[in-house]
Amino acid sequence: MNRPSAVAIAAEVASGVRSAEDVAREALARIAAYDAVQPHAWIERPSPEAVLEKARAVDARVAAGETLPLAGVPYAVKDNIDVAGLPTTAACPAYAYRPERSATVIERLEAAGAVLMGKTNLDQFATGLVGSRSPYGAPGCVFNRAYVSGGSSSGSAVAAGARLVAFSLGTDTAGSGRVPAAFNNLIGFKPSKGRWSTRGLVPACRSLDCITAFTPDAADAALVDSVIAGFDPEDSWSRREAVGPAPLGETFRFAVPPARQLQFFGDLEAEALYAGAVERLKAMGGQAVEVDIEPLLAAARLLYSGPWVAERTAAIEDLLRTNPAAVHPVVRAILQGGFGVSGVETFKGLYELADHARAAEAVWGWADVLVLPTAPTIYRIAEVLAEPFALNANLGFYTNFVNLLDMSAIAVPAGFRANGTGFGVTLVGPAFADAQLLALAARYEEIAPMPQAPDLDTDGKPQTVKLCVVGAHLAGMPLHWQLTSRAARLVARTKTAPAYKLYAMTDTTPLKPALIHVGEGGASIEVEVYELGVAEFGSFVVEVPPPLAIGTVALEDGSQVKGFVAEPRATATADDVTSFGGWRAYIASRS
Amino acid sequence: MNRPSAVAIAAEVASGVRSAEDVAREALARIAAYDAVQPHAWIERPSPEAVLEKARAVDARVAAGETLPLAGVPYAVKDNIDVAGLPTTAACPAYAYRPERSATVIERLEAAGAVLMGKTNLDQFATGLVGSRSPYGAPGCVFNRAYVSGGSSSGSAVAAGARLVAFSLGTDTAGSGRVPAAFNNLIGFKPSKGRWSTRGLVPACRSLDCITAFTPDAADAALVDSVIAGFDPEDSWSRREAVGPAPLGETFRFAVPPARQLQFFGDLEAEALYAGAVERLKAMGGQAVEVDIEPLLAAARLLYSGPWVAERTAAIEDLLRTNPAAVHPVVRAILQGGFGVSGVETFKGLYELADHARAAEAVWGWADVLVLPTAPTIYRIAEVLAEPFALNANLGFYTNFVNLLDMSAIAVPAGFRANGTGFGVTLVGPAFADAQLLALAARYEEIAPMPQAPDLDTDGKPQTVKLCVVGAHLAGMPLHWQLTSRAARLVARTKTAPAYKLYAMTDTTPLKPALIHVGEGGASIEVEVYELGVAEFGSFVVEVPPPLAIGTVALEDGSQVKGFVAEPRATATADDVTSFGGWRAYIASRS
Repeated sequence: MNRPSAVAIAAEVASGVRSAEDVAREALARIAAYDAVQPHAWIERPSPEAVLEKARAVDARVAAGETLPLAGVPYAVKDNIDVAGLPTTAACPAYAYRPERSATVIERLEAAGAVLMGKTNLDQFATGLVGSRSPYGAPGCVFNRAYVSGGSSSGSAVAAGARLVAFSLGTDTAGSGRVPAAFNNLIGFKPSKGRWSTRGLVPACRSLDCITAFTPDAADAALVDSVIAGFDPEDSWSRREAVGPAPLGETFRFAVPPARQLQFFGDLEAEALYAGAVERLKAMGGQAVEVDIEPLLAAARLLYSGPWVAERTAAIEDLLRTNPAAVHPVVRAILQGGFGVSGVETFKGLYELADHARAAEAVWGWADVLVLPTAPTIYRIAEVLAEPFALNANLGFYTNFVNLLDMSAIAVPAGFRANGTGFGVTLVGPAFADAQLLALAARYEEIAPMPQAPDLDTDGKPQTVKLCVVGAHLAGMPLHWQLTSRAARLVARTKTAPAYKLYAMTDTTPLKPALIHVGEGGASIEVEVYELGVAEFGSFVVEVPPPLAIGTVALEDGSQVKGFVAEPRATATADDVTSFGGWRAYIASRS
Repeated sequence: MNRPSAVAIAAEVASGVRSAEDVAREALARIAAYDAVQPHAWIERPSPEAVLEKARAVDARVAAGETLPLAGVPYAVKDNIDVAGLPTTAACPAYAYRPERSATVIERLEAAGAVLMGKTNLDQFATGLVGSRSPYGAPGCVFNRAYVSGGSSSGSAVAAGARLVAFSLGTDTAGSGRVPAAFNNLIGFKPSKGRWSTRGLVPACRSLDCITAFTPDAADAALVDSVIAGFDPEDSWSRREAVGPAPLGETFRFAVPPARQLQFFGDLEAEALYAGAVERLKAMGGQAVEVDIEPLLAAARLLYSGPWVAERTAAIEDLLRTNPAAVHPVVRAILQGGFGVSGVETFKGLYELADHARAAEAVWGWADVLVLPTAPTIYRIAEVLAEPFALNANLGFYTNFVNLLDMSAIAVPAGFRANGTGFGVTLVGPAFADAQLLALAARYEEIAPMPQAPDLDTDGKPQTVKLCVVGAHLAGMPLHWQLTSRAARLVARTKTAPAYKLYAMTDTTPLKPALIHVGEGGASIEVEVYELGVAEFGSFVVEVPPPLAIGTVALEDGSQVKGFVAEPRATATADDVTSFGGWRAYIASRS
């Protein structure tokens, strides 16, 4: 795969080895080719001729002797950031306007010689971590398009992840610049609040919004940061650079949560990849320190259950009042909730946050940097469309608190699941640790080669199905072979939602359970989730005997998967064994 | 008058020249004597024996060789700050509780050897700038008790102003630690937010609240600051000391507002005293620079018309919901307004504030310090009780924005009105300019002796009346002698509220106007306000001929004063001359 590095392109163009026009022509060709795969990564692009004209202007500036740190570097920008001459939609056509002036970040990039290739799709008003909340379509992960790209900076992550551009700009309020980086094998650099100007940004949650960069490596992120960072007197949220922590030495301490606070929603591959990243950091000279992150998680819970929903509502109040139908239904449902928040609740939320922030400071007494999974798991687009709130919320488990607590962060790749989707970890520091984090990310890249990225998913991946088993198909149980013989792969050991009873049927051989959805008053039952091809799945279903059936099972994390259910007659002569919590414990009790 | 300086007392007690017990005994005697004048300065005091026991404990610590920077210094504390063993009322008996632990500021003062004399009265829940919003009574200015003491730290200002204690603690959200300092000839030191711990403080507007000190001079304020300042890990609002601006040199630049932005609500004495303070600063080496303070005034307007009212509501939400009758009616009317504030409005207010804060930063580009009147004028207690909202708001004209904009401030005395009430100016700096401001205040005291303070008002001052004249009694007009012959003193050239019409009566000699209240659609008419003794006023009223009368006239600043009105018949044969804006202009037009 072509890997256009910003550092390399800028060096070549600035030294005359290549022209910016050549670089732009190649980028245009890559983009045109990828339009056959995911055209909905983009919302608007300048005409190819306009791009080439810009590139030629860069060549002229180089020829005139200008020093351009991003000479000819092609980039994309999320469509909630103003670019003069192009509409800004925030993924809401009814909201669109045509700005007369570009955002400060765009002005600085263009002054440095970067060449804009287009504006990218996003979760509408940057409200989402999935990418599937846009009328312009739902981009998928570049390595497996059945899975979400992550959001809200979906298109920017796809454009950078598919190497259509050297880098792209996203934004990040609750994780929108980090979660998609993880899924698409990218660096996601989220500067300290106020380090990058937000003038010209459509606010999502204005007091928390950051503009971010997706890059293939840390060196490119540092280069982009060097061009964009710096006080902007026109932005009331811009901050003068404070003195950050000193660069880390050969050895350093990094915080990791205790096992009880780690949450992968049953994603065993993610769990293993996180453990691998921790080993990598140890190999770099890092000393892992277990640190309680409860104050961080408590702050995270405030973001959507506390007053900040009203801040999102404030951003598009007029549209919500005058033309609510123009807003994506999922986004609308969230934002309308903000009208019910009172000023009193808002101030109380601010107090609660202040207490969490004070408690969270303790982390920096124990460690120089905090290392967390970027996202605990990943979901299929179809899963997210069926359960658009809970699964989205799960993805922000490790990201939601970062801006609330005024921290800086850089998401770095940490490997791939068997299905090709990326997993990442995030290095988190206090405010103004940006330079330290960029340097640490570079060391992380150097210590050992990362696994080769899978091929881009351009033709569609073989479709697989997740299947939840609860009894005789569990690992080690008598019918488990029906899964192994179909190359089914264990993807999660988890529990159902607390809505089930488990019965032991008395007249089946081998002994089998019946999982009955009872709703209120039900329990969470231990299950295993396997992934297998659709054809194999079909043949599996054929073999399921009555009164069992394959239906849909709700899991603890809010997702729904295919799984064993039972007809009503199944419990006619069955014993309620719910109190065991799972089939394995019940079987153990009998022997 | 006895002037117990904290610096002097501590030096004497620490060196054994005097005992803390002696100092406490004298303070107890002063307090007991002043109970004949304003017992309602206090809400609760420890028994004299308990005070003496504390003082003896200090003597024992000194004898044991401890170094106590405030050895034996008697002080008072506002009753919204916790002292273990005494109730905290916040001037609301229904709210009272008995804290088990003292506030951090109290712990630090006691560790330093200070001796608490009692807890002082305040505007309930620190909501007010007047001192007349308390069920425990309305303290008056120590120099003229017909006038407000200022608030909300009313009792602390009286206790320090009457020199009952060496210093006292107040609190300051919108000016509560500065306005009463001005009226009672005190330093009012309001540290940067987070410099003094607020643990153990009943919140008024929690994100803005500061604890403050009233002292007789800057050296005492610096001494108290040295004991109290410093990070408190138990207070989520505590801030680690940032590096403040460098100390000012021999010459420095100070900002003053342009004349059009100065507002004294017609108080000519205050205007002259402010000009005098500016001259004093020039004599110190200061160069006055006119700086637009509109962003500051705009931020000030947010405090009561914006979402921060809801923050006050949040502080006592339970009481307001369950027992609203227990809350002072004026305070209740304000705080109940906070229930109507939405979360969306709150965030929009925060954005507006961010914009004002950015604009306000420009001040520090032009000047090292901003010098403003502490309060534009002062009112009688009776006036404030009659118009409890507007007059209170006027007093915060120069103070409301300081905490919203994260500034530090020190109020310093700047002379006295003829009626004895104090006037002050405030030196305002950015956050963490505390040391610079304390040093500048000390220089301000040294450059020239301040006027001698009037005697304390212990017997009541001769009662005077304000009289508003609009026509033939204006200075230079034919009947002006009726005022001068009664020793009436001009106290304001101002305008009426925009609710009047002015008529020229056609059948009187000399020519006289009739001022007619029409409400909506009326105009503001130029007037002069005189102050004269009640007896003289009575004899004046006797001489007023029909159809004129002495009634009540509403002024531009919201206050109401006695003044010329007219019977309905006055306009029967009169010309409407309202368009001239005042009698003087009309008379000029005729010649």
